[in-house]
Amino acid sequence: MTVARTVELEGHIIDSGMMQQCFGVVMDLGGDFDVEVFDVGTHKDAESYCRMVVTADDEDSLREILHELHQHGAHLSDPPDATLAPAPRDKVVPQGFYSTTNHPTKVRYDGEWLPVENVEMDCAIVVETGGDGSDDGPRAYTKVLNAIEEGDLVVTDEAGVRVDPPERPRGSKGPFGFMQGGVSAERPSASLIREIAESVAETKAEGGTVLAVAGPAVIHSGAGDALARLVREGYVDMLSAGNGFAVHDLERGQYGTSLGLDVETLESPRKGHKHHIYTISEIIRAGGIEAAVEQGLVEDGVMYECVVNDAPYVLAGSIRDDGPLPDTITDAVEAQNAIREQAREADLVIMLSTLLHSVAVGNCLPSTTRVVCVDIDPATVTQLLDRGSAQAIGMVTDVGTFVPKLAETLVDGE
Amino acid sequence: MTVARTVELEGHIIDSGMMQQCFGVVMDLGGDFDVEVFDVGTHKDAESYCRMVVTADDEDSLREILHELHQHGAHLSDPPDATLAPAPRDKVVPQGFYSTTNHPTKVRYDGEWLPVENVEMDCAIVVETGGDGSDDGPRAYTKVLNAIEEGDLVVTDEAGVRVDPPERPRGSKGPFGFMQGGVSAERPSASLIREIAESVAETKAEGGTVLAVAGPAVIHSGAGDALARLVREGYVDMLSAGNGFAVHDLERGQYGTSLGLDVETLESPRKGHKHHIYTISEIIRAGGIEAAVEQGLVEDGVMYECVVNDAPYVLAGSIRDDGPLPDTITDAVEAQNAIREQAREADLVIMLSTLLHSVAVGNCLPSTTRVVCVDIDPATVTQLLDRGSAQAIGMVTDVGTFVPKLAETLVDGE
Amino acid sequence: MTVARTVELEGHIIDSGMMQQCFGVVMDLGGDFDVEVFDVGTHKDAESYCRMVVTADDEDSLREILHELHQHGAHLSDPPDATLAPAPRDKVVPQGFYSTTNHPTKVRYDGEWLPVENVEMDCAIVVETGGDGSDDGPRAYTKVLNAIEEGDLVVTDEAGVRVDPPERPRGSKGPFGFMQGGVSAERPSASLIREIAESVAETKAEGGTVLAVAGPAVIHSGAGDALARLVREGYVDMLSAGNGFAVHDLERGQYGTSLGLDVETLESPRKGHKHHIYTISEIIRAGGIEAAVEQGLVEDGVMYECVVNDAPYVLAGSIRDDGPLPDTITDAVEAQNAIREQAREADLVIMLSTLLHSVAVGNCLPSTTRVVCVDIDPATVTQLLDRGSAQAIGMVTDVGTFVPKLAETLVDGE
Amino acid sequence: MTVARTVELEGHIIDSGMMQQCFGVVMDLGGDFDVEVFDVGTHKDAESYCRMVVTADDEDSLREILHELHQHGAHLSDPPDATLAPAPRDKVVPQGFYSTTNHPTKVRYDGEWLPVENVEMDCAIVVETGGDGSDDGPRAYTKVLNAIEEGDLVVTDEAGVRVDPPERPRGSKGPFGFMQGGVSAERPSASLIREIAESVAETKAEGGTVLAVAGPAVIHSGAGDALARLVREGYVDMLSAGNGFAVHDLERGQYGTSLGLDVETLESPRKGHKHHIYTISEIIRAGGIEAAVEQGLVEDGVMYECVVNDAPYVLAGSIRDDGPLPDTITDAVEAQNAIREQAREADLVIMLSTLLHSVAVGNCLPSTTRVVCVDIDPATVTQLLDRGSAQAIGMVTDVGTFVPKLAETLVDGE
Repeated sequence: MTVARTVELEGHIIDSGMMQQCFGVVMDLGGDFDVEVFDVGTHKDAESYCRMVVTADDEDSLREILHELHQHGAHLSDPPDATLAPAPRDKVVPQGFYSTTNHPTKVRYDGEWLPVENVEMDCAIVVETGGDGSDDGPRAYTKVLNAIEEGDLVVTDEAGVRVDPPERPRGSKGPFGFMQGGVSAERPSASLIREIAESVAETKAEGGTVLAVAGPAVIHSGAGDALARLVREGYVDMLSAGNGFAVHDLERGQYGTSLGLDVETLESPRKGHKHHIYTISEIIRAGGIEAAVEQGLVEDGVMYECVVNDAPYVLAGSIRDDGPLPDTITDAVEAQNAIREQAREADLVIMLSTLLHSVAVGNCLPSTTRVVCVDIDPATVTQLLDRGSAQAIGMVTDVGTFVPKLAETLVDGE
Repeated sequence: MTVARTVELEGHIIDSGMMQQCFGVVMDLGGDFDVEVFDVGTHKDAESYCRMVVTADDEDSLREILHELHQHGAHLSDPPDATLAPAPRDKVVPQGFYSTTNHPTKVRYDGEWLPVENVEMDCAIVVETGGDGSDDGPRAYTKVLNAIEEGDLVVTDEAGVRVDPPERPRGSKGPFGFMQGGVSAERPSASLIREIAESVAETKAEGGTVLAVAGPAVIHSGAGDALARLVREGYVDMLSAGNGFAVHDLERGQYGTSLGLDVETLESPRKGHKHHIYTISEIIRAGGIEAAVEQGLVEDGVMYECVVNDAPYVLAGSIRDDGPLPDTITDAVEAQNAIREQAREADLVIMLSTLLHSVAVGNCLPSTTRVVCVDIDPATVTQLLDRGSAQAIGMVTDVGTFVPKLAETLVDGE
Repeated sequence: MTVARTVELEGHIIDSGMMQQCFGVVMDLGGDFDVEVFDVGTHKDAESYCRMVVTADDEDSLREILHELHQHGAHLSDPPDATLAPAPRDKVVPQGFYSTTNHPTKVRYDGEWLPVENVEMDCAIVVETGGDGSDDGPRAYTKVLNAIEEGDLVVTDEAGVRVDPPERPRGSKGPFGFMQGGVSAERPSASLIREIAESVAETKAEGGTVLAVAGPAVIHSGAGDALARLVREGYVDMLSAGNGFAVHDLERGQYGTSLGLDVETLESPRKGHKHHIYTISEIIRAGGIEAAVEQGLVEDGVMYECVVNDAPYVLAGSIRDDGPLPDTITDAVEAQNAIREQAREADLVIMLSTLLHSVAVGNCLPSTTRVVCVDIDPATVTQLLDRGSAQAIGMVTDVGTFVPKLAETLVDGE
Repeated sequence: MTVARTVELEGHIIDSGMMQQCFGVVMDLGGDFDVEVFDVGTHKDAESYCRMVVTADDEDSLREILHELHQHGAHLSDPPDATLAPAPRDKVVPQGFYSTTNHPTKVRYDGEWLPVENVEMDCAIVVETGGDGSDDGPRAYTKVLNAIEEGDLVVTDEAGVRVDPPERPRGSKGPFGFMQGGVSAERPSASLIREIAESVAETKAEGGTVLAVAGPAVIHSGAGDALARLVREGYVDMLSAGNGFAVHDLERGQYGTSLGLDVETLESPRKGHKHHIYTISEIIRAGGIEAAVEQGLVEDGVMYECVVNDAPYVLAGSIRDDGPLPDTITDAVEAQNAIREQAREADLVIMLSTLLHSVAVGNCLPSTTRVVCVDIDPATVTQLLDRGSAQAIGMVTDVGTFVPKLAETLVDGE
């Protein structure tokens, strides 16, 4: 005696790989399926629809199959409301809570599908039921574990939750489709930079916001001026970096060196190795970066341009830091919250030579945000792109030549 | 006015990704399709079948679509015979010749599907029509460009050619399925080695042949004894390597050093840096490796075990070589032919820390041969596995610990 | 008219490269020198002595030369007392403060050379003058910038400061000398592991303390059991890691998976991808790792062994963290202080597959602490060893095979 | 009872590290030394001189010490003539033959120091004694093992041989000094490219010859046009590459693609994956590259510019090759001879993204030739620079941006 259930797949079920994965899941888990309806969207933007009856030997097997199908975007044809349970204490979720993906998600409440706000991976979903005399209707949004408050209504189990994995861009339709075949240094660099420049320009033209995530290598490799230029010219709206990035940028502004090396002349001035620690002590003495700019201590560089152009920056602390600067947020949870806020505003994120900060920002991004990731280490690029982002370009190249070329292309139109 | 053609997909069309790719191709190229029959093989080993009518705006577009569909394994529902043209000169193929994939392939001749022998990538297919009073029926086989002889009947265009891309192993069914998610050093090493050992043991139990492709790092990293043991105990049947590998192995046998470093004590004996060139001159003096073994000059090591256990070895020369040894095949085309012969006999190929030799061997393998690829550089493993092999395990690890552990597991049953 | 000054070099001035560097400095900066005394210590442990008169064209050039010579360990033959200045505010050092190296250092105060306590790179030196009716004599110690308190007497300039760069171990005298020729994967792995085991055993035999710095890859690669064993058997006394390491270790204990993958069977159990976030929520619910062990929630693994064997652990937070666990120190400065305390107690530090935590620990170590650094990425090993450590072994290998082999060698005596 | 011998060190004995190494050798090997004369060249270009008496416990120890000292450039103060022995057969050297370094070397013959011609690593030195009624005086030159002819007078042992290791450039005096601190991607890219351009310009201004060694990645990364430009404008005089480089360059010329990818538009034209094998068959049909240029089949690209600008090229075959092209030298020994001839004429060698060909060329270079090595993999750059070259710049960057920027700087003077 077998048990059965009808599930549906909707949307870009072929391009996203959803159908192939769902069929595979059923077969792997020893189930059977019968395709009842299969409408293929034959145009690029058309959506497809598939309805199938899934059969298994017993309820347990069926539940397992349905769990997996749910992960891949399939849903029951007659979905129930989501199950809610109150958080027993601050920071403690109900057992069996639903842990989010980074894909667009809906939660069924009172027979309606509520879109989940601020989608982010590995979070709980909290539902506010509205009512209580208030005018607001019900809403659902994500919360990280450490933000959970006692009594929050948290979604448990996956019934009544619907995930919409993004389609992968098809064919040879520009750089965001280009990455599908894996990451390699053997790509046409100049052409790829041109396409990245176009997507920055496009984002700006649409009124979007560009967030740069930058590691110290940007400064060491001599690309600081070019990044400063992108901030000044309005192509980079926000900056996410660490204490080290800021210190090396400020050192360059004060001493012309980065970790004691003159990035123009390649000379190591005497005492240069002490510049970075002197830089820190001077900024501390001034009372912070903004104060240092106001006092004329800092007259150029990326941080300078952020200050004078009102480009918000988040400097997240780490256990590697010297100093740190007064501007650096030393608490990791606080820093994550600041990063999260920036990430939600970003329409395009450019990650430049930093694994730590890029992962931190990437963790907060929905799969629908455009991401450009540039690093000289292919393993870093692979790791950063391997998060189910729908629109990601990876480029294995030298930031020291990449950022200047990007700035030239965008600003000088070369 | 549109034009249409009916195509079929057969086999593991879902697991192999064939269906998804074929649908994508039609959409990308602006065509339309109508699925007429769609039978899904719902059991792991069952095959599926899909028949669809593909429509395009004109003959050119349709031809382009059909070409792409063919690459992904689709075929016309009413296939013609393959087109044959004679090679105009030695080493010169007819224009528009069909260039092979590494997948199982059939050629339609006289209404019959001939399996293509010795499938290998980037070759021409030559058809011998039989007849001529001979008893042999017609046959088809691959030839590399430099082996083409004037008058060879070469397949041109892709009509009448059928490719069968292998299914990708599904789910979590052992190590050969494991690689699907990309290459990473962060894998459970001991467990993966155990599974590789099992597939070696299985291959041997089935009477199969194991080919080891080994780079000099095997010796430098101290794994030479373990590889020698695998040859002696019959787990490795054939060896493919370069001049450098043999020199360092023989140096170890003669001086206990590899490039002058004692791999046991980590000492660099005085004059050690000259050992490798002295080793070469001694082997030349002896008249080759086999002679050196017979004369008692070489008493252990990988090459020694190959000689005394009749394990055939191919030493392919390269422009990096010192010497070279008399046994090294210095001509690249001759060396490729020797490699090709070994590759065709192999049921399992273990590639150990050499990109050059692994690519050379990999180029000669059909997609159905099992491949294990071990290197400490993830980029090397990715590149080697990125060739559409159906059964490949990649492992990012240190050969210096990998080979001894593999030998322990296989020989001592640990 | 030229100016001159007499400087002295003492100690292992040849082996440490000091002499070569000092001669080079004078020549590079356009000075002249006349060697007055040159006594070479001709035995391995004998020290050498060199006295030379350095001449330059003017006071400025001479000062520059002397600054550089000081960096390389030379000192004036008639040293003055160190200059001291009070810190104007908390966290603010006097201008021109002396920034430390990681080498043994002395400060001249009241005609006596005080050894600087807790030597660490990029710190200020604070002198407590004693007196004040107290019995204590004067002392000198390092302080990081953020620990400076108003009124601290801080050393400025380098007069009266003496640095003693360590000799580099000579020749082929075991693994700590072995690294001199750079980092490479092509080293004899088994022999090198044996020598590392010996230095661990030796450190323990001398009553020393071994600190392991471990990244999440230790768990992913299946080496968790072996590291747990090293803690249990007393070969690892302290642990420095991050939130991620602890989560993956605890996940293994609770679910048998690491990031959802079973490290024994290589299976990915259904729902496995949620295990790590469930693990975090369970540990939060329990009230922390120690509580979870007491409640029987965690029954094995590295963290378990640390708890039951009273091996102190520091879990430093980062912006990448999920959760975090209640045990994780989220503030970077606090975490650095905890790391610093551990680092000072360590006689041997083993860094396993983590750049972030290894740099953080390495920043706190004097150049005299033994360091073993293991990573699969040669760039990481190079970066970690490139800090002037006197006794460092780097090994480019797979922690997944390294830690088990190390444990076997140490515990089973294999 | 001890034995003693007097040795001398001359030249840049401090800058080259020679003195430090020699002192270390004596100490490591248990000997003693007494410095009799020590004259330090106190100006940048002045040479130093050191004479010391080396003492050991017995003749064997002394011989060992002297062997090591010889390797580091020390020589006996009363050198004998070199020992010569005839080669017993073709390709067979006398036992104990002297194996060369890549440093300038002299051989003492008949009381005179003969400079060794065509210095190259791991060769034998052959002395032609002159006389025989011929007018030529005696001469000495290197021969690789496979070129030895029966009866050649080969130097054995190291008596009467003198090696002059080059000084390492000092301080921050431009890019060739810059590499001393190891290889890293975190260098100021634009500045470093500018300095490389200057050294190319300087070499050309001095009438020197520039050899480019190029891998296929140059073409894949879209840098082919820029390299072609450097050939056309006379900044690159000779090319050393492989079959693959030429094929991809020619494919770009014929189809606008490289391995099937359009490097301008990033599109993969249909059938693009067959372009490289079609390219090969077309060039074979034409009769070779030069013929293809003459027939108008190839109208641009690197190979085209080499042909029309009479820039000699060597295409060395390898076992990875498809085809190969008729121009490719398939025999490794023949190819090495062609490479050797080019290498000897080169004053500056630029190695671009190829380990195989760079090692092959590097093997043939004396330590006095300038070398620039560019690769995105730091391990490759490290390996290539680790050969005792006196004048080497390594740069870890993307050739796809490097070559265009270099061409801009050189040709457009930007």
